Amino acid sequence: MFAARLQAAAAPAGIWHRAEKRVVDEAAVQAVSDELRALKEKLKKEGKSSKEVNDTPEVAALVAKLKALKAGGASEAPAEKEEKPKKEKKEKAKPEAVAPVEKAKQQVKGGGLVNKKAENVPDWYAEVIGKGELIEKYPVKGCFILRPWAYKLWEQVQGWLDKRIKEIGVENCYFPMFIPKCYMEKESDHLDDFAPELAMVTKFGNEDIDEPVAIRPTSETAMYAAYSDWVQSHRDLPIKLNQWCSVVRWEVKQTTPFLRTREFLWQEGHTAFAEKAPAEAEVLAILELYARVYEELLAVPVVRGTKTKAETFPGADYTTTVEAFIPATGRAIQGATSHHLGQNFSKMFEIQFQDPKDESGKGIEHAYQNSWGLTQRVIGVMVMVHGDDKGLVLPPNVAGIQVVIVPVGIKATSTEEEKTTLKRVSEEYEKMLQDAGVRAFLDGDNVNSPGWKFNQWEMKGVPLRIELGPNDIAKGQFMMARRHVLDPKEKLVGRHDSVVEDVKRTLDEIHQALYGKALKERDERLASVDEWKDFSPNLNAGKLVLIPFCGEKECEEKIKEKSKEEAQEVEVAGGLKMGAKSLCIPHEEKYKKDCPTKCICPDCPCNNVKQRTLFGRSY
Amino acid sequence: MFAARLQAAAAPAGIWHRAEKRVVDEAAVQAVSDELRALKEKLKKEGKSSKEVNDTPEVAALVAKLKALKAGGASEAPAEKEEKPKKEKKEKAKPEAVAPVEKAKQQVKGGGLVNKKAENVPDWYAEVIGKGELIEKYPVKGCFILRPWAYKLWEQVQGWLDKRIKEIGVENCYFPMFIPKCYMEKESDHLDDFAPELAMVTKFGNEDIDEPVAIRPTSETAMYAAYSDWVQSHRDLPIKLNQWCSVVRWEVKQTTPFLRTREFLWQEGHTAFAEKAPAEAEVLAILELYARVYEELLAVPVVRGTKTKAETFPGADYTTTVEAFIPATGRAIQGATSHHLGQNFSKMFEIQFQDPKDESGKGIEHAYQNSWGLTQRVIGVMVMVHGDDKGLVLPPNVAGIQVVIVPVGIKATSTEEEKTTLKRVSEEYEKMLQDAGVRAFLDGDNVNSPGWKFNQWEMKGVPLRIELGPNDIAKGQFMMARRHVLDPKEKLVGRHDSVVEDVKRTLDEIHQALYGKALKERDERLASVDEWKDFSPNLNAGKLVLIPFCGEKECEEKIKEKSKEEAQEVEVAGGLKMGAKSLCIPHEEKYKKDCPTKCICPDCPCNNVKQRTLFGRSY
Repeated sequence: MFAARLQAAAAPAGIWHRAEKRVVDEAAVQAVSDELRALKEKLKKEGKSSKEVNDTPEVAALVAKLKALKAGGASEAPAEKEEKPKKEKKEKAKPEAVAPVEKAKQQVKGGGLVNKKAENVPDWYAEVIGKGELIEKYPVKGCFILRPWAYKLWEQVQGWLDKRIKEIGVENCYFPMFIPKCYMEKESDHLDDFAPELAMVTKFGNEDIDEPVAIRPTSETAMYAAYSDWVQSHRDLPIKLNQWCSVVRWEVKQTTPFLRTREFLWQEGHTAFAEKAPAEAEVLAILELYARVYEELLAVPVVRGTKTKAETFPGADYTTTVEAFIPATGRAIQGATSHHLGQNFSKMFEIQFQDPKDESGKGIEHAYQNSWGLTQRVIGVMVMVHGDDKGLVLPPNVAGIQVVIVPVGIKATSTEEEKTTLKRVSEEYEKMLQDAGVRAFLDGDNVNSPGWKFNQWEMKGVPLRIELGPNDIAKGQFMMARRHVLDPKEKLVGRHDSVVEDVKRTLDEIHQALYGKALKERDERLASVDEWKDFSPNLNAGKLVLIPFCGEKECEEKIKEKSKEEAQEVEVAGGLKMGAKSLCIPHEEKYKKDCPTKCICPDCPCNNVKQRTLFGRSY
Repeated sequence: MFAARLQAAAAPAGIWHRAEKRVVDEAAVQAVSDELRALKEKLKKEGKSSKEVNDTPEVAALVAKLKALKAGGASEAPAEKEEKPKKEKKEKAKPEAVAPVEKAKQQVKGGGLVNKKAENVPDWYAEVIGKGELIEKYPVKGCFILRPWAYKLWEQVQGWLDKRIKEIGVENCYFPMFIPKCYMEKESDHLDDFAPELAMVTKFGNEDIDEPVAIRPTSETAMYAAYSDWVQSHRDLPIKLNQWCSVVRWEVKQTTPFLRTREFLWQEGHTAFAEKAPAEAEVLAILELYARVYEELLAVPVVRGTKTKAETFPGADYTTTVEAFIPATGRAIQGATSHHLGQNFSKMFEIQFQDPKDESGKGIEHAYQNSWGLTQRVIGVMVMVHGDDKGLVLPPNVAGIQVVIVPVGIKATSTEEEKTTLKRVSEEYEKMLQDAGVRAFLDGDNVNSPGWKFNQWEMKGVPLRIELGPNDIAKGQFMMARRHVLDPKEKLVGRHDSVVEDVKRTLDEIHQALYGKALKERDERLASVDEWKDFSPNLNAGKLVLIPFCGEKECEEKIKEKSKEEAQEVEVAGGLKMGAKSLCIPHEEKYKKDCPTKCICPDCPCNNVKQRTLFGRSY
């Protein structure tokens, strides 16, 4: 069953193919496309149906020609070049499996990517998510296809988080994706912030819609009117709802798969309480779950903190956040946020009840609300932090496949018995591991060589590979290659008698190693800076800085401008000469230490700063 | 934990409250609303922020007044009438819990709904899904809020189906919700059918979008262009993808929650094969899963069959379907469909590969494709089939709560020990059942009376209620009341020594009973009709008819018209005098028996009909 599941995932990556197709004769493609379109139109005008048009031999010939051209073949002889159809043809003449192996070797010669992470992060990222089969391009700008290999990561995160929010009483629901005008007008402070990015539905077919609707950028307004209907007494609270859905923000900025896209998957939790204290406790409880998603599932360390005024969610009293760090670019990235909305929305939407503490019986109290969300961005952060020049590196706790078993060591001289035994033991391993809850997959086909398989699964980031051959079986052992360890000599030996234990322990160790490495890199790039003169030098060295900061928007703006100015004439790690912004006021005590009272911003008169704020370049 | 989960679900239903609010003075509400709006605008013009406006005493007073009015109180004395604030007030003077119980009794006096299923199905349906807390209204026409109690049903269906499609190698993914123009133009035969219902995004904020996009009504076109990129060789097939998402069809017809809505939740599977046979086998395998969702989870019998030409999905070679029956209206309803698309889309989108069977190496073959979908409609069908005049009746296999435990028999004279023991044993039962995988919930609060709880959980359709009191505990037993058994005397006795077994067995029996009842009703309403003269009399008696039918669109249209005509002058079961349409050509042998060769349509010359087609009025 698991094998069947992999069939689709193992298909070649479209983006990859596109990359190969750079040798395509674009002009010839255009010419044939035009010819084909004209012919189709002509036939359609003659009254032929779409099916009849496509069945016409001339059309079929042009389609084939176009296909060959697009794949990089010559326009006149589609099946003659070193190209897919050729390979298919070869298979007939040669022993099975030879041709695909050749093909594979061409594609992943020596393994690895064309782009190097240390040299060009954006190109490396595009290549790694394409060849790693996470993402496929899509013709609507800022929208991307999440392929099964990416969706499996999301399903792991979803499964883990869904279980935990249900444990604290949150229930799932589904609200419509359309926000009506009456709601948009209701909470203008909140939606004004989203207004320029609202995707508006104004027509159905060719007809105008009487009252256009927006596609939700977030669902505060959609949900809270219903909350108002549901709350009559403090006994109707708390309400704790969540939905897993997609939202749309029509970004005009540069979009990046997973990190900033026009449509993205997320969960949004919306809760309402009769009292402030439990609401505020929940904000932090959710933030801790988000931190655990990063640290326990994705092996990415985060700083838990509270946003400054300038970065607080519109409509919230305060916003808490987990902030991750991408060493390769020296930039921070907001991981997920948990907002305390106070009574701002409940007053707008009249989510209110008679105050049970008011003796007169006339006092009205408003609900205290939170909202909190985690998006598909988690996948992008994980790729950025752990990926390397051989492709993806997936942390074991989210990997769709944690362990791939690759049978090795079969030669022309191998006996039938050796082959049969190898097959049997490999299958036993797969079953034992699956039964123990390990996501194991036996790549046991005879089509591709072990080397091709190694490269394939390394590109896709499977954290652990078991290599098993006749010699290993004879010794009662198997070899384990960890994806993140690049030296092929550093394989571990597992024992046949303790397959499950050895694999589980190694997966745990891999998680710890990935997390430890990321934590070390992050911590080395955190600098406590007390005076402005040290701000830019640290920032431009690719670090985040912990500074005394008064919290005011004006100072934040000034710091951003000054740090941008000071970057122009010097070398900057990561290359991007943008200004620094505030990331969060960290919650952990260790970040608060020895904080000067004077705000770091040169002209700021403030002299009663209490704790440090984390600043840095950010996504 | 489970208790916490229920807090939100147990909040009063908004629609319910709205029903109560029919006594509201609408004119007064309007007047106060206007006054409030004017005041707010005035204050805003004076430069006050939204928060300041809301904190203004005049505004707060008007808000309170409006709230009271909306809740049915008088405009001048919001807390003086027999209304919410009053009850809250009472609580202070009386012992805890008395007021809410009184309130509850008012609401559900004697249990049951205002509307009777046998008398007015649409009003009954609206009431049952409102009071049963499945649905809340939403201000965008044709869109509805799926409340947690509904979403739990969907999660059960989702969990069951997702597991089974993964077992046959299907993987989940996510494609963007926007369909670009280039795709819409590509497969015009297919999208023409959806064109009038396409929701078009033409603006972001106030800016026009260069190239407007449609929101997916289904994702064939969005997905198959990518498939074309992914398929280079027959080795890249099969591709088996699925996504759980919502789609939008801007219905102009009457919308009904769950059954026909502008946005709805579904799963859409899209598969591509190198050969026809495995594709066709999958169509039926998926259809059987859909039939099992209805029969094994929802306890609703379905007829498996193939659609006639007129009812085939646009772009498909053929469409298979499961058809359910709603006895209360005598109408059939399409349950879910599984389409074989043949090579229609693969030719349009060039999902093609070199034919491995062609010796010349030049032959191009196109993939064989299927698409299949099941929607949130399942919930509506289940409500329609099983619900009764006391509210929802949920089949055990999908119910969010399968068993509610209600402690009973505590009187003023009960000892502390009796109370403590009852609490302890009730909690033990809940834990034992939950540990055994039963979705059990102990409704153990002291606020509401057992009678109130009985009504509440009956309204919400929980299939089994355990009543446990000091006397039961003394006898080592507990009582079980099955939701679908209306006679309160027909309770079953369970034994303390076999709680889990007794409950599990009873849940199974409930499923069988619900299914058996629905099957009997359905079968009694299936008539084999050979001649036209018997068609309308059976149809108008609320039956579906199995008829010899040639399959042509013209005849189908004629049957629809004639049956509509013939309904006008007579009494019609269910009341709706619409024409009959074809539902499916049933697959099961028993429906094919003794089929006349002559098409039933009076003027049709066809005399070689092979099997019967099922016709009826339909949703």
